[in-house]
Amino acid sequence: MNESKPFITEDFLLQTPAAQRLYHEYAENQPIIDYHCHLVPAEAANNIQYRNMTHIWLAGDHYKWRAMRTAGVAERYITGKGPDGNASDWEKFEKWAETYVKCLRNPLYHWTALELNNPFGVKTLLSPQTAPEIWETCNAMLAQPEFFAQGIMRRMKVETVCTTDDPVDSLEFHIKAKNAPTFPAKMLPTMRPDKAMAIDKPDVFLPWLEKLESVTGAPIATFDALFAALEQRYEFFASVGCKLSDHGLGMFPKTKITAAQADAILKKAIARQPVTPEEADGFARLVLIECCKLNHKFGWTQQFHFGAMRNNSSRIYKICGPDAGCDSIADGETALAMSSVLDELDSTDQLARSILYNLNPACNAMVATMIGNFQDGSYPGKIQYGSGWWFLDQKQGMEDQINILSAEGLLSLFVGMLTDSRSFLSYTRHEYFRRILCNMLGNDMTNGLIPYDFDLVGELVENVSYKNAKNYFNF
Amino acid sequence: MNESKPFITEDFLLQTPAAQRLYHEYAENQPIIDYHCHLVPAEAANNIQYRNMTHIWLAGDHYKWRAMRTAGVAERYITGKGPDGNASDWEKFEKWAETYVKCLRNPLYHWTALELNNPFGVKTLLSPQTAPEIWETCNAMLAQPEFFAQGIMRRMKVETVCTTDDPVDSLEFHIKAKNAPTFPAKMLPTMRPDKAMAIDKPDVFLPWLEKLESVTGAPIATFDALFAALEQRYEFFASVGCKLSDHGLGMFPKTKITAAQADAILKKAIARQPVTPEEADGFARLVLIECCKLNHKFGWTQQFHFGAMRNNSSRIYKICGPDAGCDSIADGETALAMSSVLDELDSTDQLARSILYNLNPACNAMVATMIGNFQDGSYPGKIQYGSGWWFLDQKQGMEDQINILSAEGLLSLFVGMLTDSRSFLSYTRHEYFRRILCNMLGNDMTNGLIPYDFDLVGELVENVSYKNAKNYFNF
Amino acid sequence: MNESKPFITEDFLLQTPAAQRLYHEYAENQPIIDYHCHLVPAEAANNIQYRNMTHIWLAGDHYKWRAMRTAGVAERYITGKGPDGNASDWEKFEKWAETYVKCLRNPLYHWTALELNNPFGVKTLLSPQTAPEIWETCNAMLAQPEFFAQGIMRRMKVETVCTTDDPVDSLEFHIKAKNAPTFPAKMLPTMRPDKAMAIDKPDVFLPWLEKLESVTGAPIATFDALFAALEQRYEFFASVGCKLSDHGLGMFPKTKITAAQADAILKKAIARQPVTPEEADGFARLVLIECCKLNHKFGWTQQFHFGAMRNNSSRIYKICGPDAGCDSIADGETALAMSSVLDELDSTDQLARSILYNLNPACNAMVATMIGNFQDGSYPGKIQYGSGWWFLDQKQGMEDQINILSAEGLLSLFVGMLTDSRSFLSYTRHEYFRRILCNMLGNDMTNGLIPYDFDLVGELVENVSYKNAKNYFNF
Repeated sequence: MNESKPFITEDFLLQTPAAQRLYHEYAENQPIIDYHCHLVPAEAANNIQYRNMTHIWLAGDHYKWRAMRTAGVAERYITGKGPDGNASDWEKFEKWAETYVKCLRNPLYHWTALELNNPFGVKTLLSPQTAPEIWETCNAMLAQPEFFAQGIMRRMKVETVCTTDDPVDSLEFHIKAKNAPTFPAKMLPTMRPDKAMAIDKPDVFLPWLEKLESVTGAPIATFDALFAALEQRYEFFASVGCKLSDHGLGMFPKTKITAAQADAILKKAIARQPVTPEEADGFARLVLIECCKLNHKFGWTQQFHFGAMRNNSSRIYKICGPDAGCDSIADGETALAMSSVLDELDSTDQLARSILYNLNPACNAMVATMIGNFQDGSYPGKIQYGSGWWFLDQKQGMEDQINILSAEGLLSLFVGMLTDSRSFLSYTRHEYFRRILCNMLGNDMTNGLIPYDFDLVGELVENVSYKNAKNYFNF
Repeated sequence: MNESKPFITEDFLLQTPAAQRLYHEYAENQPIIDYHCHLVPAEAANNIQYRNMTHIWLAGDHYKWRAMRTAGVAERYITGKGPDGNASDWEKFEKWAETYVKCLRNPLYHWTALELNNPFGVKTLLSPQTAPEIWETCNAMLAQPEFFAQGIMRRMKVETVCTTDDPVDSLEFHIKAKNAPTFPAKMLPTMRPDKAMAIDKPDVFLPWLEKLESVTGAPIATFDALFAALEQRYEFFASVGCKLSDHGLGMFPKTKITAAQADAILKKAIARQPVTPEEADGFARLVLIECCKLNHKFGWTQQFHFGAMRNNSSRIYKICGPDAGCDSIADGETALAMSSVLDELDSTDQLARSILYNLNPACNAMVATMIGNFQDGSYPGKIQYGSGWWFLDQKQGMEDQINILSAEGLLSLFVGMLTDSRSFLSYTRHEYFRRILCNMLGNDMTNGLIPYDFDLVGELVENVSYKNAKNYFNF
Repeated sequence: MNESKPFITEDFLLQTPAAQRLYHEYAENQPIIDYHCHLVPAEAANNIQYRNMTHIWLAGDHYKWRAMRTAGVAERYITGKGPDGNASDWEKFEKWAETYVKCLRNPLYHWTALELNNPFGVKTLLSPQTAPEIWETCNAMLAQPEFFAQGIMRRMKVETVCTTDDPVDSLEFHIKAKNAPTFPAKMLPTMRPDKAMAIDKPDVFLPWLEKLESVTGAPIATFDALFAALEQRYEFFASVGCKLSDHGLGMFPKTKITAAQADAILKKAIARQPVTPEEADGFARLVLIECCKLNHKFGWTQQFHFGAMRNNSSRIYKICGPDAGCDSIADGETALAMSSVLDELDSTDQLARSILYNLNPACNAMVATMIGNFQDGSYPGKIQYGSGWWFLDQKQGMEDQINILSAEGLLSLFVGMLTDSRSFLSYTRHEYFRRILCNMLGNDMTNGLIPYDFDLVGELVENVSYKNAKNYFNF
């Protein structure tokens, strides 16, 4: 027989006594500010009860889908779409258990173990052998109110959560949550006006424009009208407590155009005439600039997510649509375009607090030095290099982000972690991040790279885990 | 005097007891499947006897040539080409010994020590002082049949070896080896149709086209005829046991053209009219696509080697020709072109099992996420991120590849190491890789990053060292 | 109360006994050859006395400025420029102390502690609490001759220092230092002809051209005349002991043009007609090539600094001008252009000893393999991959450079560290580098990655710390 040690212990990832002390004294008990996620507001506001583990854990998780496809699992056990029909929830869970044991060293190995441990208290590792018992145990818990959506948020000490919302959204569930006396956290919307930039995709852009007309009540035939409508939505979002925008970019657009040109391009698009790639890029850039000016005007923090290449498999796209696990990391030159957008805003003092999330780690150092160009002394850490995003949201990716931010900027002012998740089970990502942060700092203390001074280092841990975000976002 | 510890011990690179156990119990005794190399088939089939260490070890090794030039050694002691004439084999060996002591921390320092240790049993480190004795000892061994080509393969437990072959090759030595009752391993050809893409180099392309006409017996004046001829060669290669193709790309071509356009470009090239860079790129892309369809049709695995910039020194190229140690790492945007080729094949279900070997480590994460887009559930690990190639075939490069593959894909399904070498002394690269893999996993176990469970981790070690490749390639 | 360990000890950064022995026996006492810096020659020649710590330490340091802006400090306490006026030297020092405690894990945290420790002997860490005492103590020392510019150089065992100089410079202070019997070091100029390439910036290029006419005494109306004038300045620089050139490039120019084309472009520029970006790139490339030929003719070493994107904030540029802390890392394709320049020089045997300094770490491996293409056996380590530059001049950046150089080239031949600094307090960067180098090698010895042989490894340490530079530059 094989010796074995328990895996998810209270000192998981904490390799030195200093790290353990930092985590347990300064990080572990901080509340959670989850300032960027993709939770469905209705699920939170309606306090959804999940019917089983597949529903809460597998149904929306394209990380797991990718791993299962890689492991040789057929689509019927993954999304249940495709030519071979749909498997049962249990069959899907069983296939995930078979896949899990092949995930050694993948972040899913840690995430899964952490999520079973908290909130479910399951310390047994998932495997084909343990799957039936875990299925039964957890499903029984999911039937209890403490494991409904709001119960989990309460249990995880979620203080604030910011969802990601289209400008045309009614925000009805944010309002419902706000007015519910027992809702356990502040749930705020985030303005994500990506579709306003998507003029090269008429099937996305034009229906969205119609919706915008409909919610604002005025026709949109000009660039000015577009921004009059958007500003109206900014006002509405602000009235519901919005403090953040988010912009998904692929790469930063680079073509500079005038408002008159943007107006002409918009009119072509509305007339369903084709726009050139250069026109689309120019239009996207000016929409971005104008949105950023609104972000500044409303006193919000703006987020930029860039460097993704989406829907690479047209076969899966036909079967499953977007966000199906067929996205990956883009490459290409982007520093100049990024600098140009930030400088244009900075030069008129319209650069809002900003967080730059980079997806290609080859750009990490470039981004970490870019933020320094536009720090203006007005607020500590005004321009942020965001936490490891998507494919970088794992131990190595977080360590790289922390190391490069440390070397090129000020880690002590970092606003820290977010889940970026659709799942109410993802809050242990904050625990994961805090353990990794404390482990790095504990190693540094132990190796004499930073002073062996718990007051000094512990304060940094508290700030990055919670207090910086609390002060920065001004919720 | 100086304290000193033995260098190549049985626990070389294995820093924890867990690593040592993993290596010695699960990795060390696995046979070798060397599924990609550049051995000369005639040398294997004819069981070549090398006249001395310079012949077997230095004569074809451009890694050593580069190091020697860097160390200030003149060309007469390296390739023996160039204006200053050719030194003797002993003089070259002596210069290599002088260079070796300057190679501390370079992979050559490890490789050389491992190769002297196995098969020669020499534990003394090479140096100007030890060179004469090592020269005598090893040369005497090379005169023994156990150190002829086949003797070395037998000793190293090489089960399968796949060479790299031009479509016009007669494969006579593969056939000879197959029919030789005492040949110690399966030696299979690999189809490498790079010259079919090289339409921008008429001095390469046109003579090759003539040879293809000659071996297939039909004139090639059209794109269809080109692929009829190539398919005939695919059939022939398959009849000799070929299970793999290999495609050397620089960067992935990106220009989409039709078969009719390719036909017109081919006709221009045959008429010795110049083709534009865009035409050449489009032609290369369509040739690649059509070859990939054949790879799928024949049930082979296809390999893509990309990211090299070759023959940078035109001075050395004039003296020594290609593959003389003047190649390096290319840069530039490539994700979109790569995705486009893979998607085009996937969308018609003609994407064969594929291995992507990347040379620029800045692209590691991009490539490691690219493979996930096209995993289709049909076979575990269908699309592979290949082991550290060329400049990345060293400890840091292997660790990076293993770490990024782990983070973005499933390490447990990885088909593992290959030598990519011209030399019968390179088989210790498999030992090197296995030690590095076990060291990483042993560290993870010791640090609580993966379960301390030898059944679980040992199985992964066996699979990556040998079993995954055995199952994947279907030799 | 909090346990605390001393921070800057004699074994700072040296994590193993082997590392400690390497540093103290082989590195610590080596003199300093600072072959690239931006010291102001007049300050050295005139043995400047600094009025206080802000004068010597903060007034020219854009690393600290960036950190202070990031920490939320207003411009009046940083450069003292901008709309809000100028703070006193003490106020600036105080703000720097407030910022310092937020710099944990940033290189400034180490640099600052090392610089207070040596030469000032201050072991207390800077903080708002300790700032007044440190201010008094150090200011009192600065009033003593041992802390004037030459005193510091003497104390730090600076043997040679190479400044960075415009071709039109009179070099009067180099000459004065050379002729001063008590000047403690060799202070040599470095030719930096960047302005000769800046034809796209007429406000820079044309006034510079006039100065060049003025110091050489002949009109410059042709490309030939430009290089006749430059060669005259090369001769003058050589007469003052110059052995190095330096070329700041953004990215390597890539457009190949003829001398006749360059001549025409120059005439357009002189006539104040606009030149196209392609013309400017071609002109820059040919100027670079011709300068490199002069570098070779004069037997100098040439340095290439590339990969920076400068003056990103136009707001700060208006307030503070260039070099104000608003520069960052560029991206984009550059390997082919770099190879082309080096190959063009190599093919006519006009490639001087060269050092390539790369700023984007995503290019590290590309650059480390590029140098191998052009090693020609004429001198050990002829083409060098330069030490971590600017944003990479920190622990991780140095370790990365050392690791990648080790993997792709020969670390043993590396010419080592330089300060690249404007400050007489930066010499502890050499100590920092040596500690990091010894720590890495000590770890390798301890882990069995290199032989546990102090003669072997100690020699490498001595060579990289001092002897290689001494032999390579031929001062």
